[in-house]
Amino acid sequence: MLAQCSEHCAHIFHSFRENVTDSSKIQELIKLSHEAKSYAYAPYSDFKVGAALLCSDGTISTGCNVENAVYPLGICAERTAIVKAVSEGHRKFLAIAIASDMKDAIISPCGSCRQTLIEFGTEWDVYMTKSDMTYEVMKTGELLPHSFTPDSLNSEKISNAH
Amino acid sequence: MLAQCSEHCAHIFHSFRENVTDSSKIQELIKLSHEAKSYAYAPYSDFKVGAALLCSDGTISTGCNVENAVYPLGICAERTAIVKAVSEGHRKFLAIAIASDMKDAIISPCGSCRQTLIEFGTEWDVYMTKSDMTYEVMKTGELLPHSFTPDSLNSEKISNAH
Amino acid sequence: MLAQCSEHCAHIFHSFRENVTDSSKIQELIKLSHEAKSYAYAPYSDFKVGAALLCSDGTISTGCNVENAVYPLGICAERTAIVKAVSEGHRKFLAIAIASDMKDAIISPCGSCRQTLIEFGTEWDVYMTKSDMTYEVMKTGELLPHSFTPDSLNSEKISNAH
Amino acid sequence: MLAQCSEHCAHIFHSFRENVTDSSKIQELIKLSHEAKSYAYAPYSDFKVGAALLCSDGTISTGCNVENAVYPLGICAERTAIVKAVSEGHRKFLAIAIASDMKDAIISPCGSCRQTLIEFGTEWDVYMTKSDMTYEVMKTGELLPHSFTPDSLNSEKISNAH
Ligand SMILES: [Zn+2]
Ligand SMILES: [Zn+2]
Ligand SMILES: [Zn+2]
Ligand SMILES: [Zn+2]
Repeated sequence: MLAQCSEHCAHIFHSFRENVTDSSKIQELIKLSHEAKSYAYAPYSDFKVGAALLCSDGTISTGCNVENAVYPLGICAERTAIVKAVSEGHRKFLAIAIASDMKDAIISPCGSCRQTLIEFGTEWDVYMTKSDMTYEVMKTGELLPHSFTPDSLNSEKISNAH
Repeated sequence: MLAQCSEHCAHIFHSFRENVTDSSKIQELIKLSHEAKSYAYAPYSDFKVGAALLCSDGTISTGCNVENAVYPLGICAERTAIVKAVSEGHRKFLAIAIASDMKDAIISPCGSCRQTLIEFGTEWDVYMTKSDMTYEVMKTGELLPHSFTPDSLNSEKISNAH
Repeated sequence: MLAQCSEHCAHIFHSFRENVTDSSKIQELIKLSHEAKSYAYAPYSDFKVGAALLCSDGTISTGCNVENAVYPLGICAERTAIVKAVSEGHRKFLAIAIASDMKDAIISPCGSCRQTLIEFGTEWDVYMTKSDMTYEVMKTGELLPHSFTPDSLNSEKISNAH
Repeated sequence: MLAQCSEHCAHIFHSFRENVTDSSKIQELIKLSHEAKSYAYAPYSDFKVGAALLCSDGTISTGCNVENAVYPLGICAERTAIVKAVSEGHRKFLAIAIASDMKDAIISPCGSCRQTLIEFGTEWDVYMTKSDMTYEVMKTGELLPHSFTPDSLNSEKISNAH
């Protein structure tokens, strides 16, 4: 556990120091996530969220939350950005930025979104911002330690499984 | 009940005869839904679905299903098309076409997608197609009779409710 | 379409006249759905829902809605009742009653719940009640016309499907 | 970040050494999670999962996964156990055990389930087991670092938020 946890910490610092993308691109991504927030359809929570997803070819896909009178049917900004990108042929992502109106707190992805993010890899960057556009960054996999991944489905099962 | 049901039938014929959009636009919509299917990320079900959503200003937003190793995290093609359109400023829709590879059966939206569709109105058209692009059409509201709508949330409650 | 719709109407009357279960059992089911509502965890919508599910062996499984600060993670009362019953070995259901605090409107299942209900058959009864315990009843399949069912997954596909 | 991460590691060891519940109770919980797995309705993934949830008063609520032909409608074992417990009046939980048939891998909760778990507190124990009933344990909050919580919804927003 210790070894794994040290590695975990290492990853965090790694992502701060040696990002896969240059800082002006990240600034643009963060700015777009804040702009995307303005399209949020959030009449029930009044909690608007925006996201901007950087695809491997440089394309940016934006998203916002889209709520529903039946609350469980809502879809988050991060997943909106993901499905939008996939529907346009993208499956490799470098980074996602997330924006909300929270003044003193970073907006982090919910558990459902984290699971959606790692479906497309555990090693890409999540920029969690405040309303002033300052941020913290973590790898997708760090946000869901010990995660259930596509590989889990193919894990060897016990013989008397069913 | 009878009155309501007759009205229901009337609606169906109405939508066949007097569509809000012309037939060449509908043919384009259906064609795009079948093309959108090619982007489906469906490694778990191997069941690819595409959708094309006609916004009130003529814009078309396409979608595909985006699955997840954790099955409940998947998002359908119809909802992909909806959240994509909303994230680009659209909230009024005229029609959606849905496509799958099923040879002899129309593809109809799942219950979750139907609830998402009626969030944006109960009177617009759903074109449910076969792989040969023939189709049936129903209004969003007909696909979810007696539906729970945004108005339900504001319904008067009994005084000792909690 | 007309034939199907007539059949639809016929079903509705059928379910009123010749229920699979006797009326005192239904009264008990409805009463239990209203009691189950008191356990609802609904701090976000303040919209409490209860459900009571009658299994084929006479067992009744109750449920309530369980919301989440991340709205899309909430689970409805009807689905709570279903998964609870399944987790105790039941898969055949005769009827479900649904209760809310709405004074003048029946509470009907959302699209997601309707899809969950038909996973276990399209011919069983849904009692949608008002706060005074009066109700309307429809078959699960009637609530989701032209539904995507377990059979759809096995439908023959076109050869060049992928 | 380092301080936080050290604290993170500390938590992990803490939960191993000084559990809130005695070890025979935990053994029972784990055993029940494996038994609950037998009720799983998983015809689509063929991946059966069980869960057993220990409530603060000692009651144990079991759950299994309940899938759907429309994959996104499935509900995981952990959430089944939670909604079942809530529907019976429980809202304080001490521990949850999770079981699958994976031979050489622990089963960990998906992101959606993690979000559901922390709705009821970030400091209770998650026992993630292998098929031989060995396990790793983590706090709910450790499984979702930097999580969006019920408090986030009430965070102060910027004045020009909408
Ligand atoms: Zn989310
Ligand atoms: Zn759907
Ligand atoms: Zn529902
Ligand atoms: Zn889960």
